Amino acid sequence: MKNFEFVNPTKILFGKEMITKLGKEIKANSVNKVLLHYGKSSIFKNGVYDQVVTTLKENNIEWVELGGVKPNPVLTKVQEGIEVCRKEKVDGVLAVGGGSVIDSAKAIAAGVLVDGNIWDAFEGKKRATKGLPIFTVLTLSATASEMNAFAVITKEDENKKWAFSAGYDSYPKVSVIDPSVQMTLPQEQTVNGAVDAISHVFELYFDGAKHTDIQDEIAEGIIRTVMKHVKILLNDPENYESRAQLAWSATLALNGLNSAGRTWGDWSTHTLEHSLSAYYDIAHAAGLSIMFPAWMKYVYKNDIPKFARFGRNIFSLEGNDEDVAVESINKIKDFFDEIGSPTSLKQVDINEDAIEMLTENASLRAPIGVLMKLNKDDIREIYKLAIN
Amino acid sequence: MKNFEFVNPTKILFGKEMITKLGKEIKANSVNKVLLHYGKSSIFKNGVYDQVVTTLKENNIEWVELGGVKPNPVLTKVQEGIEVCRKEKVDGVLAVGGGSVIDSAKAIAAGVLVDGNIWDAFEGKKRATKGLPIFTVLTLSATASEMNAFAVITKEDENKKWAFSAGYDSYPKVSVIDPSVQMTLPQEQTVNGAVDAISHVFELYFDGAKHTDIQDEIAEGIIRTVMKHVKILLNDPENYESRAQLAWSATLALNGLNSAGRTWGDWSTHTLEHSLSAYYDIAHAAGLSIMFPAWMKYVYKNDIPKFARFGRNIFSLEGNDEDVAVESINKIKDFFDEIGSPTSLKQVDINEDAIEMLTENASLRAPIGVLMKLNKDDIREIYKLAIN
Repeated sequence: MKNFEFVNPTKILFGKEMITKLGKEIKANSVNKVLLHYGKSSIFKNGVYDQVVTTLKENNIEWVELGGVKPNPVLTKVQEGIEVCRKEKVDGVLAVGGGSVIDSAKAIAAGVLVDGNIWDAFEGKKRATKGLPIFTVLTLSATASEMNAFAVITKEDENKKWAFSAGYDSYPKVSVIDPSVQMTLPQEQTVNGAVDAISHVFELYFDGAKHTDIQDEIAEGIIRTVMKHVKILLNDPENYESRAQLAWSATLALNGLNSAGRTWGDWSTHTLEHSLSAYYDIAHAAGLSIMFPAWMKYVYKNDIPKFARFGRNIFSLEGNDEDVAVESINKIKDFFDEIGSPTSLKQVDINEDAIEMLTENASLRAPIGVLMKLNKDDIREIYKLAIN
Repeated sequence: MKNFEFVNPTKILFGKEMITKLGKEIKANSVNKVLLHYGKSSIFKNGVYDQVVTTLKENNIEWVELGGVKPNPVLTKVQEGIEVCRKEKVDGVLAVGGGSVIDSAKAIAAGVLVDGNIWDAFEGKKRATKGLPIFTVLTLSATASEMNAFAVITKEDENKKWAFSAGYDSYPKVSVIDPSVQMTLPQEQTVNGAVDAISHVFELYFDGAKHTDIQDEIAEGIIRTVMKHVKILLNDPENYESRAQLAWSATLALNGLNSAGRTWGDWSTHTLEHSLSAYYDIAHAAGLSIMFPAWMKYVYKNDIPKFARFGRNIFSLEGNDEDVAVESINKIKDFFDEIGSPTSLKQVDINEDAIEMLTENASLRAPIGVLMKLNKDDIREIYKLAIN
């Protein structure tokens, strides 16, 4: 096991009607005026907006609103949020939505206190180490952004979709996860959340680190739980217990627990996907279910025992390591097919013509990856494997 | 899944030579003088004391020392510590040792700020909600006290061994877990730590709660990992990787993660054990490996599916639920036997004559338990089952 430092200060309020407790928590953090940040109109339809406003009013917390966050949150919206916060003198950011809204809130919270352009922190030209207190009400379980310190933002004019963290202050102070608000989600979004959560576990699990028994047990437990409950939700979307299992599993997938003692993960597949969703209007998760089987096929020989362990513990496969490793990749592709998440570029109308553009974009920071260092030529081959 | 609130602010520094970073962390918490609290002479032999003193000196942190904490830490030592802290005006407590030393430190840290007798907080007559900042260097993985807010202290004159927490302030600010300092532990202590960790998982796992898939996955992962690596350590005590797996698993067993969304656990077996170690000089873990199989035999019919799940996922048993449930109890007893932890009262020279005294003591707060509410008559029967 590698040495590690672990801390996660986010307080989680999990369960039915826990939104009612949020105002008191915000007040306890000495915050009196928040930017209420959200995406589309769904929070007005499912009652979440009303619940949030009620708890804010009950605790005499003022707010200004900024909606319109897109599924791949963009820098221009972040900059708009920073301006609003400065002008309105808010002292906290409250994100109500999924990972995109929370990520946007994190960039705003740090950006308000940065002297200059927050994008410089994404580029590594500047360090952002402070931020306004962040609170979240999660409406779509997927990214675990509600319990980690990371944000992914797209700079539209350069087609860059990059990650960033302002450290300790980027952890939300308090996050509310009420699984019942997810019972009305469209099936596609539920599936996307499950794929995203599983993908986070994959990035950490297939990192080449050794002596990670307890971490691998947790990783495999999360994968099995997500696979079981997303299938239940396909037929029974209002099953509260499966919503709860999916929600907490997705949070645990990327809250630091699963990465402790490993490397920081491989993350090549996320890079390969980010280049897809930077150019095409496809969901992050759809890109991940396309790219993961292709990446696995290209790299599995670098750690056949780990892929064999995966096949045995997730799909109960039997046989020699190499056969089980190969078959495990077919099995995960089958699973993505079964839940209706795309597994080839052709399914989302991307063909060979796009390969070079995608390769160029994903190679900007090459070599990428940990289990196998991928250079431009490797990246091109993986995109080719993803075509069909 | 039950509604829950989860937060765990403890920062963990895990791995080789991480003690060197401790002084800086203490300083970052604005603490300038600590009570250096420890047990016996082992920290002088294994070099931990020297490492701790070095990092304190490097960061200009003063200290006063109080050693002599016993394996079942006692109230008189806690009161001595409180007096030293007040007299010497220390502003933090640094526990260097196992769970007993850390528990003693937690009671001292809270007691310094309590007006009156700290034992009143154990009795529930007074609330303790504040404490001095606590730091720990763990030398024996077992209780997870390094990453939770609980302490168990014995009031010698009344043979009461009770738990308490001062809430948020009882979480250590920073805990160092360097598995390499445990490589020289006597085999018995390694075994005790493993039994203690597994027992914590049991108390939470067999709590009768439903819809706990992801929690059960984590629980079973911890149990399998502890069982695997304690067996390796019996033959190879200096195996760093197995020390690391055992250490992190023991921390995760009772840091709040595994209890989130369940009840607060059953904890009857701990109560039954506390009465044992209040009267006899036996290790907490030895008492647990004696009492758990007896408790399981008495209560398993209250949740046969859960005991069957346990048997299948831990021991790969096959068959109908009832048979697998019964066999799983034999198997865990076999495992305790295999690693040399006692599984009957007779093995530790306690016989029928003691049953009534133990029953009286354990019934002080009866009914106890969650999976099955145990009254005095039930408690007596369980002690009888533990005789052989």
